[in-house]
This record gives sequence, C-alpha cells and structure tokens, in this order.
Amino acid sequence: MYDYEDLGSGLYCFRVSSHEHTQMIDITDKIKAIVTASGVREGLCTVFIPHTTAAVTINENADPDVQADFIKEIGKIVPWEDGYRHYEGNSAAHLKSSMMGFSETVILHEGRLLLGTWQGIYFLEYDGSRTRRVYVKILQG
Amino acid sequence: MYDYEDLGSGLYCFRVSSHEHTQMIDITDKIKAIVTASGVREGLCTVFIPHTTAAVTINENADPDVQADFIKEIGKIVPWEDGYRHYEGNSAAHLKSSMMGFSETVILHEGRLLLGTWQGIYFLEYDGSRTRRVYVKILQG
Amino acid sequence: MYDYEDLGSGLYCFRVSSHEHTQMIDITDKIKAIVTASGVREGLCTVFIPHTTAAVTINENADPDVQADFIKEIGKIVPWEDGYRHYEGNSAAHLKSSMMGFSETVILHEGRLLLGTWQGIYFLEYDGSRTRRVYVKILQG
Repeated sequence: MYDYEDLGSGLYCFRVSSHEHTQMIDITDKIKAIVTASGVREGLCTVFIPHTTAAVTINENADPDVQADFIKEIGKIVPWEDGYRHYEGNSAAHLKSSMMGFSETVILHEGRLLLGTWQGIYFLEYDGSRTRRVYVKILQG
Repeated sequence: MYDYEDLGSGLYCFRVSSHEHTQMIDITDKIKAIVTASGVREGLCTVFIPHTTAAVTINENADPDVQADFIKEIGKIVPWEDGYRHYEGNSAAHLKSSMMGFSETVILHEGRLLLGTWQGIYFLEYDGSRTRRVYVKILQG
Repeated sequence: MYDYEDLGSGLYCFRVSSHEHTQMIDITDKIKAIVTASGVREGLCTVFIPHTTAAVTINENADPDVQADFIKEIGKIVPWEDGYRHYEGNSAAHLKSSMMGFSETVILHEGRLLLGTWQGIYFLEYDGSRTRRVYVKILQG
C-alpha cells in the first residue's frame, strides 16, 4: 500500500519520476507520511539524494510561479552550454546540484516536520526525465 | 531572562530582527548560549530557518567587509529584478536562500560548537526588514 | 598507522593538503575508513569543514572533466576580482564556500556510507594551497 520502502533503523527509500529535463517536484507529503509511519516524535529527518545531477531544497509551496522563476534563474546563472569538457554534456546539472545540495535536514517535533508555514521540500531534477531515488533517515533524539 | 524559548527535547527557538532589506546577522553567541544551556557535551547542533526568503550560513567574523562583499556579490549573481513572474516580486530572495541553505549542522565537542577560528554562524535576511524565527536542535550522541 | 585522529565520541579529524589555489580533492576513501573504524552500522555521518574559504560537496567521481568544469564554471559565476572591499582579496572564496556549504550529511546503512553509484565526497579548496582540517562525526541511531 505504501509507495516507499522501509529499510529498517529509521531508513526509508522512495522513487521520484520526472517528466521534464529540469523540474521541481514537491515531496513534502511523501516525507510527512514516512515521518508518521516512523512513530518518532522528536529528532531529525534527513532527506538525501543519492545522485549527482539532482538535488533537494526547500521552497515556497504557495505560488507555482516561484518554481518557474527558480528554474529559469538558476538556468541563467549556470547555463546548460558553456564550453564544458565533460563528455556527457551535463556539467551544468552537476554544478546546480552542488549549489542546491544533496541533503536537507529538518527537525522533528511532536511527531511532525518542523517546517515553516510556506515551506515545502522539493526534489530538484536537473538532468531528466528519469526515475530517481530519495532516502529519508529518521533519527530519534 | 533568556531571549530564547526552550521547547523541550533539545529544541530551542529564538527571534532575529533585521532592519535592512538584505542583511547578515551574526547569531553565533545566541547559539553558543543555547548549547551551554542544553548541557550536551558531544553531539550535533542543527540550526534551521523556517522561512523561504531567509537562510543560514557560516562566514568569517573578523572583517565586516567580507559581509558587505558577500551581500553585494550574491546580489549581482541573482539580481533582484530579472523578469520574474512571482507576484510578490521576491523570487531572488527565494533562490538566494536555497543557494545558501536553510540548515547548518555544527558538531558539538566537549560542550562547545566545533567551529573554526574564523567561523561565525550568520542569519541571512534576503527580504527584510522582518522579525524571523530560528530553531536550534541539540542532539546528543 | 591511521592518518586521522580519533577524538572520541565518534568524532574524527584529518588533514587535507591542496597544491593549487582552487582544487577539488576526493576524500571519500578517508571517510569510508573512518566509518569502518567507528564500527557504527546505522546512523548519520556529518563531514564538517572548520574554515571559511573551503567547503565540501558531493560530485561525480568517474570523469575528471566534471571537476574541471565545476571549478571553471563556479569561477565564472563568482569572479575572483570584482571590486571587493575585503583587504585579504579572497571574498570570492568566502562566497563560493557558502554556496557549496561547510557540511555534508550522509546516511550510514549496514556499516557503510549510503552514497549513490557515482557519488564521491569532495573537499573544495578555494584559497590554497594550504593544509586544512576536516571533521567527521559519526552518530549512531
């Protein structure tokens, strides 16, 4: 019934499929479901992306224009073509991923993610479309 | 007497008020005070910003010119006006926050933050002036 | 025999020497050795850089051209000379370090770093050549 795998010791894995080359996908609800399933009330939730051309960040989840601006502007800052040497041609995706980061740490409090009102957790696909993995580790403490 | 809230289970919250639109505010001493109050000797200290247009980073705390350069240069990289669609007009603040990150993890050792000699922890306001919240989670281990 | 220091409570320190001004150094094997030495099977591994002009990231460890592109492109985005005020002249190194981040959190599973197939952990020197410290904290849970 669950669309995530429980690997034991508070470690979970799920898959995210993009259908565009560059895409922001809201994964907040998936992570909330995992937090609830873990039963942990206080601690840390670490979201980790085991890829090199995809990343994770937090962003506003209200106006979709924020995401459109986000994708467009980072694409201007790190252009897709810029005389790169890497034979796969996706060096921009590597750099953008490092700039955004491969992990996001959120505090757990009273059994819930301690996110701000407008915060959502986003998977960032920079070289799609692909199916990717996301790891979530719940640490009690 | 304390200017932070103790929410239990090693979780603390305090407020930061900016008085400029874009500002770097040194919060190292506040976090040091919380670490001391927690009584934890070994573990991790996670600083989390529950907003989408403010962030946290580490930077040099010696020469204030570093901060002036930091603010100016990131403002050149992500210009405030650039044909953004988001109706609030603060898309640059969203992107800069994601580039800097919403959390900072510092190791605790012998009851203190294991910071380098020149490192300070900075709250980054990108759409002020406002009063914001900062969460600090102390995890023993 | 070990080229790292065991500071107790799952905290380790080792040194990295760069021989260029800007350099990416693969530290994955060093961190793997520490993880093995710790004996911890499940938990979190936090890599922390106690400097303000060096950072840590994850990147592809297959084609060295990715690293060359990475160094060159971030150097275009944050130029070394740009009218900075900081008297040491290394403001670009401060900003690049904050953009990449001073810590990286990797999940531990079954006694190993839960890295993706192509992921390596890189120390980023932005104002070398120098000898720097890297802290590694292993948290069981």
